[in-house]
Amino acid sequence: MVAGLSEVLSPSQVLAGSATHRTYDCDAYTVDRSAPTCVVLPESTEEVQAIVRWCNESSVPFTPRGAGTGLSGGAMPALGGVVVSTKKMSRILEVDLPNRCLLAQAGAVNIRLSQAAAPAGLHFAPDPSSQTVSTLGGNINENSGGPHTLKYGVTAQHVLQATMVGCSGEIVVLGSRVANGPESSLLSLIVGSEGTLGIVTEAWVRLTPLPKHVATALVAFPDSSSATQAVVAILEEGVVPAALEMMDFNIMQALRTAFGLEFPEEAGALLLVECDGEEPVNDELDSVLAVCRASGAIDVRVAQDEEERAKLWTARKKGIGAMGRLAPTIVTHDGVIPRTRLPEMLAYVYEKASEIGVGVANLFHAGDGNLHPCFYFDDRVPGTIEKVVAAGEEILRKCLELGGSVTGEHGIGVEKAGVWGHSLSPADRDLQMAVRDVFGVSGLCNPCKVLPDQKGCVEHVKRWRGAAT
Amino acid sequence: MVAGLSEVLSPSQVLAGSATHRTYDCDAYTVDRSAPTCVVLPESTEEVQAIVRWCNESSVPFTPRGAGTGLSGGAMPALGGVVVSTKKMSRILEVDLPNRCLLAQAGAVNIRLSQAAAPAGLHFAPDPSSQTVSTLGGNINENSGGPHTLKYGVTAQHVLQATMVGCSGEIVVLGSRVANGPESSLLSLIVGSEGTLGIVTEAWVRLTPLPKHVATALVAFPDSSSATQAVVAILEEGVVPAALEMMDFNIMQALRTAFGLEFPEEAGALLLVECDGEEPVNDELDSVLAVCRASGAIDVRVAQDEEERAKLWTARKKGIGAMGRLAPTIVTHDGVIPRTRLPEMLAYVYEKASEIGVGVANLFHAGDGNLHPCFYFDDRVPGTIEKVVAAGEEILRKCLELGGSVTGEHGIGVEKAGVWGHSLSPADRDLQMAVRDVFGVSGLCNPCKVLPDQKGCVEHVKRWRGAAT
Repeated sequence: MVAGLSEVLSPSQVLAGSATHRTYDCDAYTVDRSAPTCVVLPESTEEVQAIVRWCNESSVPFTPRGAGTGLSGGAMPALGGVVVSTKKMSRILEVDLPNRCLLAQAGAVNIRLSQAAAPAGLHFAPDPSSQTVSTLGGNINENSGGPHTLKYGVTAQHVLQATMVGCSGEIVVLGSRVANGPESSLLSLIVGSEGTLGIVTEAWVRLTPLPKHVATALVAFPDSSSATQAVVAILEEGVVPAALEMMDFNIMQALRTAFGLEFPEEAGALLLVECDGEEPVNDELDSVLAVCRASGAIDVRVAQDEEERAKLWTARKKGIGAMGRLAPTIVTHDGVIPRTRLPEMLAYVYEKASEIGVGVANLFHAGDGNLHPCFYFDDRVPGTIEKVVAAGEEILRKCLELGGSVTGEHGIGVEKAGVWGHSLSPADRDLQMAVRDVFGVSGLCNPCKVLPDQKGCVEHVKRWRGAAT
Repeated sequence: MVAGLSEVLSPSQVLAGSATHRTYDCDAYTVDRSAPTCVVLPESTEEVQAIVRWCNESSVPFTPRGAGTGLSGGAMPALGGVVVSTKKMSRILEVDLPNRCLLAQAGAVNIRLSQAAAPAGLHFAPDPSSQTVSTLGGNINENSGGPHTLKYGVTAQHVLQATMVGCSGEIVVLGSRVANGPESSLLSLIVGSEGTLGIVTEAWVRLTPLPKHVATALVAFPDSSSATQAVVAILEEGVVPAALEMMDFNIMQALRTAFGLEFPEEAGALLLVECDGEEPVNDELDSVLAVCRASGAIDVRVAQDEEERAKLWTARKKGIGAMGRLAPTIVTHDGVIPRTRLPEMLAYVYEKASEIGVGVANLFHAGDGNLHPCFYFDDRVPGTIEKVVAAGEEILRKCLELGGSVTGEHGIGVEKAGVWGHSLSPADRDLQMAVRDVFGVSGLCNPCKVLPDQKGCVEHVKRWRGAAT
């Protein structure tokens, strides 16, 4: 395989060996692992095409990979074969500031798009917490969100046109540089398809004006329940903050331990609120804070300058990193519910964790009703990981029961393939499978993800299936 | 056919006869006509299902129709058969204000959704000029835009979940009440599919907070060229007004004649600018107006109150109606280009009209680069309609050449089926056709629209084909 691919590319673009196997056997979803035979580093759409053609001729599975920050196993080579890394496809190819768009390769790091647009007062709006490392291609595949999704929408709303190497090696261009045309419906199928329909190699994205004024506050509540009640009340008020993020008591504890951050003694939950706009937004923030106080807030810190603002965001951005102090293993879940159901959903999450005897911390996009329960535990204790996986599934089923969905921004991958497949009616499943046929999906392109239907994938979903039946 | 359908529904829900034929033989695209055999008025999803099943069993074509305000012939029963009118499906079924969404039947009039949400300070953001009569189902089928699309996006960004009766009579539910989940990709295929994939019967839509502050101005320029230059300059400034609409000299003349509106003597074009936000937006409007003045604006009127604001919008909203004074026949085109190309595109439109010796007036969403050239002429003059149709095609080809698209918000319908089909590569066309297969499209469901591929459709696209080959 290495020899064959070295002929298609150059030998320096093909990695193999045990270090490679260990590095690429999972993404940030570490529960499930499978090593590739080799990793290739193409530099252009044409090289990706050559790789995909070689894989088809040789019947070898291939899996695209950006920075590997995905949280549902989308970049894990489930059936081995070739990992197609976009690491060397990181260039910004064209910036069209007057029409507010930019063309970049799939491996371009998210934050670099915003940096390229910043001199013109523009930015690429989707801002996943991983944005300093995660790539445009990964963001497109997972339809990534982020703290500012509440006001600015997810990746799907910011991609105009994508070039993709299809499963059989054909190059297709989907969408149009002008938004909303009839070309956009096929593009919608690609964004969020988790690399199962082909390998996105470059894309035109929309650039959004940077808000001229930003006001940020960190608000402490006595407990999670009052914080989530405040979220509901704020949104009922008719305000759409740019971000409305929640951190619970366990996240605060982790931040205290890991980074020495200080929060009020009696605080049991935090809300980070950010308002932005073309005009000063102090009145808007004040009205949000008034609702917080009426909902029982016990402490309010408003950033007085950019430095203080960055400091308040530290709590949110370092939350997941801080959890490393709590336990050796962390599994982050992702589900969405109508936001009015947040208080009851959060209570359910705590109950589940307590039932199986592991810790859970919650750090999430409260304004979107997008929950991220992070279970922390020691996976060396026999049986624990199975319990955590089963509890995760129960949480997702509860999300569905409350009128929500099994993923808000982390994708289905291998992690949720079972629960997602189970949640579909036979008619819905047929429709989903028929969409794959549009793109001539074979069993080679990122197999076992989203709707695992081919031989050899059973191992990766058996835990879910076992729990579900 | 009437007898058969009267058994499926009740006799009062089936219309036939010559008055019906004349009323339903076209929508607002009057160039192409074809009468139905009968019109049915279902009241529920189940009744639509019964109709579609009957049509399948009897091999009779069926075409959905909302208010018939479409501008590309989407609701015209190209091969006769049954028109399925949603007139009696106009109910708002559920309003969920805390989660900011509502469920309405397909025949609900656009403005009524906003009226239902207004007491809570919310509205349904898509606002096509037809919004006082056009329906939710029609808006979904055409992916309608409107003056506020620039800031708030088109219908696709505001539909959460749709119930559809598929081409063979199956009921499918697409999307999810919580946005951005994996359910949304199939929904994206339905929005903008122009009724070719089935009949949408009801939908959950997102409600958006009404802006607390709005500032509106009508700015006069000496000519169209300086007005479009101003549009480019405003957007380069990093401001996104809520609306940025342009009217040219011929629209102004029509408004003077029809409604006695007054504009500055020396004005050759108008820009309607609206800014909105949570906080007062006077500074934002001022900065837009400063750019206008630097681009040569000769007169600026800023609305001082709600009444004056409504008056300024009159010019925009009554523009098309006023054109009735200019000539007996009007054909409105719809194309999109990157907005920096607006000045050259508009020059091309005037040149085309002058070449074929008909009038053209332009009234359009300048901020989106979404052009609406309205040709006005007397269709009783032999050969004129053919010239207008051919000129329209040349304009759309120019849009494509400038990196744009053949439709921004009016759809493809029968009008653009030829030029759209021609603009696709064989691979793109295969993809588009494969999407139809996902939904089991037969030749009965709204035939001859978008990609006319069945027998009997040739008549409806021959003009375009003739011009194109």
